[in-house]
Amino acid sequence: MPNWLLPENIADVLPSEARKIEELRRAILDNFHLYGYELVMPPMLEYVESLLAGAGHDMDLRTFKLIDQLSGRTLGVRADMTTQVARIDAHLLNRSSITRLCYAGSVLHTRPNGLHATREPLQIGAEIYGHAGLEADAEIQELALASLSLAGFPQVRIDLCHVGVLRALLDSDADAQRDEAALYTALRAKDVPALQALTADYAPQTRAALQALPSLYGNVEIIARARQVLPPLAGIGKALDELETLVGLAGTADVTIDLADLGGYQYESGVMFALYVPGLPNAVARGGRYDHVGEAFGRARPATGFSLDLRELARLLPTAERKCAIHAPWGEDRALKEQIAALRKAGEVVIQSLPGSENDQDEFECDRALVLEGDNWIIKNVG
Amino acid sequence: MPNWLLPENIADVLPSEARKIEELRRAILDNFHLYGYELVMPPMLEYVESLLAGAGHDMDLRTFKLIDQLSGRTLGVRADMTTQVARIDAHLLNRSSITRLCYAGSVLHTRPNGLHATREPLQIGAEIYGHAGLEADAEIQELALASLSLAGFPQVRIDLCHVGVLRALLDSDADAQRDEAALYTALRAKDVPALQALTADYAPQTRAALQALPSLYGNVEIIARARQVLPPLAGIGKALDELETLVGLAGTADVTIDLADLGGYQYESGVMFALYVPGLPNAVARGGRYDHVGEAFGRARPATGFSLDLRELARLLPTAERKCAIHAPWGEDRALKEQIAALRKAGEVVIQSLPGSENDQDEFECDRALVLEGDNWIIKNVG
Repeated sequence: MPNWLLPENIADVLPSEARKIEELRRAILDNFHLYGYELVMPPMLEYVESLLAGAGHDMDLRTFKLIDQLSGRTLGVRADMTTQVARIDAHLLNRSSITRLCYAGSVLHTRPNGLHATREPLQIGAEIYGHAGLEADAEIQELALASLSLAGFPQVRIDLCHVGVLRALLDSDADAQRDEAALYTALRAKDVPALQALTADYAPQTRAALQALPSLYGNVEIIARARQVLPPLAGIGKALDELETLVGLAGTADVTIDLADLGGYQYESGVMFALYVPGLPNAVARGGRYDHVGEAFGRARPATGFSLDLRELARLLPTAERKCAIHAPWGEDRALKEQIAALRKAGEVVIQSLPGSENDQDEFECDRALVLEGDNWIIKNVG
Repeated sequence: MPNWLLPENIADVLPSEARKIEELRRAILDNFHLYGYELVMPPMLEYVESLLAGAGHDMDLRTFKLIDQLSGRTLGVRADMTTQVARIDAHLLNRSSITRLCYAGSVLHTRPNGLHATREPLQIGAEIYGHAGLEADAEIQELALASLSLAGFPQVRIDLCHVGVLRALLDSDADAQRDEAALYTALRAKDVPALQALTADYAPQTRAALQALPSLYGNVEIIARARQVLPPLAGIGKALDELETLVGLAGTADVTIDLADLGGYQYESGVMFALYVPGLPNAVARGGRYDHVGEAFGRARPATGFSLDLRELARLLPTAERKCAIHAPWGEDRALKEQIAALRKAGEVVIQSLPGSENDQDEFECDRALVLEGDNWIIKNVG
């Protein structure tokens, strides 16, 4: 096996793709900035106790572990940055008021999410801490939609879900509570046979409700149907009210309700959402409320946020056009050097030939050249 | 131990510091772009055989290893991106002409370089492949100096060294060759007693030359002194000629020669350089030639480049000033929403209050507020 092969679901990003990702990264971070989100950079490595605090079993399995030579303790390589940012809010910043934070960085997964999924997503996201109201969720959803709009997707669908519905059902039925992890998996996959098998011995009300969830999918009218079909538990009523309010706050966005779209990390505590673009079955961005993650760091704070994978998003976009550049010869001539410096200062890409060699780029196309005419260096178009 | 403590020499980057790093990252990458360098993003993880190809023992010890669940093979977390970029040039791009590549990303070290060094540098760098001439080295040095100038350092000293001097000595003396690793260590540390002990039994010519290296330090006249002091080996003559040429190409930069400044990764093959700023004993950037790294990937290509740690560099800079922002109330009022959108489009940071809460930021200072006067939303200065 040649030693330059990369591990499965791990890839290099070559120039044209890398430039797309970089431009998208900047555009999205700049938009977060305009909304007042402060950038933080949590580390790639943490002690597992801290990294996995508040996260579910899924995240544990997905996290690479290694031994710290300095302490002998087990470290994890981050598989998600949300809990890290919650730690920064709870412990380091320690503000009592609202904090808006954003981040962008690589995360690593031991196993890919799907056959073609990367094990190294480039996660970018934004979070609001310290506000329990739906207005915070609405702002996060607005930011998520704006991020996809910056990426050039005109048609984005937002799917709303609420983990409070499942929570209320689990709290009302000890049998169901025992199967929590399996129920999550079955609901996420909308695996109705698995759901029927799991719920066979539950109380009839719980069974009927759980089996109904995968079909509670559609436009805003689904909320009214859910009120009829689901049992009249307080938690369910509250969850459906919140969804209704959020649909109202979403303005002109294309909103659907999907009460089984529970994809996420199992630390979510309230409303959840997923963004979909035409032609792609998987969500391109996910977000929601996770009010309890901060508890592990000694300070529970209301929290809501979203994130997406920049690599995946960039892959969906058309290939970037080649940038125009100016070709210049190598030389110690002072006038040449000054002219090159001035052109670069004006934002032109100037590529100097090194003696005896040709250049070759994917990313740039030299449509002009600096040539000496008489005593002056002038720019000429080249075919 | 509270579980939010981070491992030793691992740290979060908080908002004001993160913003400095992000701005520096963009400025340096943008400058690479103006010189025609194409951005690549190698992965955080590779098989160790590939990641450590061409690298020395030092790099092996510095690399975190973990087991790939998908293949059962050992993976390394990158401790340096240079060999990865050389792999991309040699294997993936596979061009015969000159290739200029740049990159920016986190690397991880099992052990810190010094007591206060981070184990997670944010490495940014640029490389030229396919050109063996000193002009390529000169361009790389120009870029490295420009990067520090963008960071705001007016006074930068460039130290030149050439691994060819040591190479020639090792090739001429089998005893010395056996001690290669120990000699590197002693020379880097300018540890004269260790050097005396190591070289005690070497041939007198080798001993004298090796012991002289740490004192061959100073301005360009050192090159002439080295020609007198060092043995007349062809490799040494060539190395000193190259240093002399590079001093000529360096223009107005503040250049010193230091024939023992061999800091690096032991894959260097020719001229090496280090940049120093006032008040800091360690180099802030390092670079040089490493023509043999590509061989491990089936294609030796001349290569020269440099890199620096953005976190370290940003730490040296003054605290960023707080950005001015506009405070706005929460509301569903259409005119308010439109005004906020227009202000953000014009580049203003607008931070909305969420109902019942106060904001608190390090990064922003709300010096203005959007207030309703009559039917109009207007901007008012706030004390």
